[in-house]
Amino acid sequence: MQVVFQITSAASDAQLAMLGQLHNLLQYTDERKTRIAVEVVVHGQAWNLLLAAQNPLSEKVQVLHTRSVRFLICQNTLNSRQLPLEQLLPFVEVVPAAIAHLIERQQEGWAYIKC
Amino acid sequence: MQVVFQITSAASDAQLAMLGQLHNLLQYTDERKTRIAVEVVVHGQAWNLLLAAQNPLSEKVQVLHTRSVRFLICQNTLNSRQLPLEQLLPFVEVVPAAIAHLIERQQEGWAYIKC
Amino acid sequence: MQVVFQITSAASDAQLAMLGQLHNLLQYTDERKTRIAVEVVVHGQAWNLLLAAQNPLSEKVQVLHTRSVRFLICQNTLNSRQLPLEQLLPFVEVVPAAIAHLIERQQEGWAYIKC
Repeated sequence: MQVVFQITSAASDAQLAMLGQLHNLLQYTDERKTRIAVEVVVHGQAWNLLLAAQNPLSEKVQVLHTRSVRFLICQNTLNSRQLPLEQLLPFVEVVPAAIAHLIERQQEGWAYIKC
Repeated sequence: MQVVFQITSAASDAQLAMLGQLHNLLQYTDERKTRIAVEVVVHGQAWNLLLAAQNPLSEKVQVLHTRSVRFLICQNTLNSRQLPLEQLLPFVEVVPAAIAHLIERQQEGWAYIKC
Repeated sequence: MQVVFQITSAASDAQLAMLGQLHNLLQYTDERKTRIAVEVVVHGQAWNLLLAAQNPLSEKVQVLHTRSVRFLICQNTLNSRQLPLEQLLPFVEVVPAAIAHLIERQQEGWAYIKC
């Protein structure tokens, strides 16, 4: 299983819902010993999910990272917010264009979940 | 044609919009005598769409069911709401994890529509 | 690359966000000399994005059209709003059922982005 999530919302209820879905998904694949690759593409308003400081959800994000979920932020989002990458959690990776990455993954056969 | 819809919203306007889309879709495929498989995965806040009682949309859901649309609820949603399956419409089916099901269907070649 | 966008929202912030994503996407593919086909399927509440008159976003839509983005409106949306096609930008194309088009494109291998 291969899946890319997209989140653009800054709202904590939307972000919490996604983190819960990721938790449930990994529990499902763990129980069935199914291999899964998971990426979360963060852009638009959702960058606060990845802040290193003053982020009430950072612990949950870190736990998912230790369970192999990759968190990707869009370079366009960093630029338009003048947000330095250093303010984000240290394991966050950058993609040049969020939408382009979502397209490429789908055309490589990954599933897509819009949050 | 094979498609899986995802709905997570409790709002009646979002639910009505989806039911209208399903109606239009089945009209399209009926007119063209095209075979279609349709599943609706209900999770998060959207469980009220499937209630057997005190549900103003239940009749529309039942009509779609008689036209072969399958309605699936997530076991995690039932658990977290302490919602007994008996309170839902009798034809509702259960999947262990909504997101896992959406991934599997896409990787089997089904299209995905997020509501 | 082949991608179909879906937009159903009348809100200008949602519409602007999508137009920005399209702009960023085309910049990405231009820089890499990657060929891309892009369609935007407009239905539900989002028809105002395609109005020819009194539409603050029409210029941005036209620029994207000149860069080969196709804008498609759903016939069901035109019917239910009693909206004449003549009130829309002249390059707008019509599909009989928005959801059916989104399914067909995905099953032809196009990626899908829900706005």
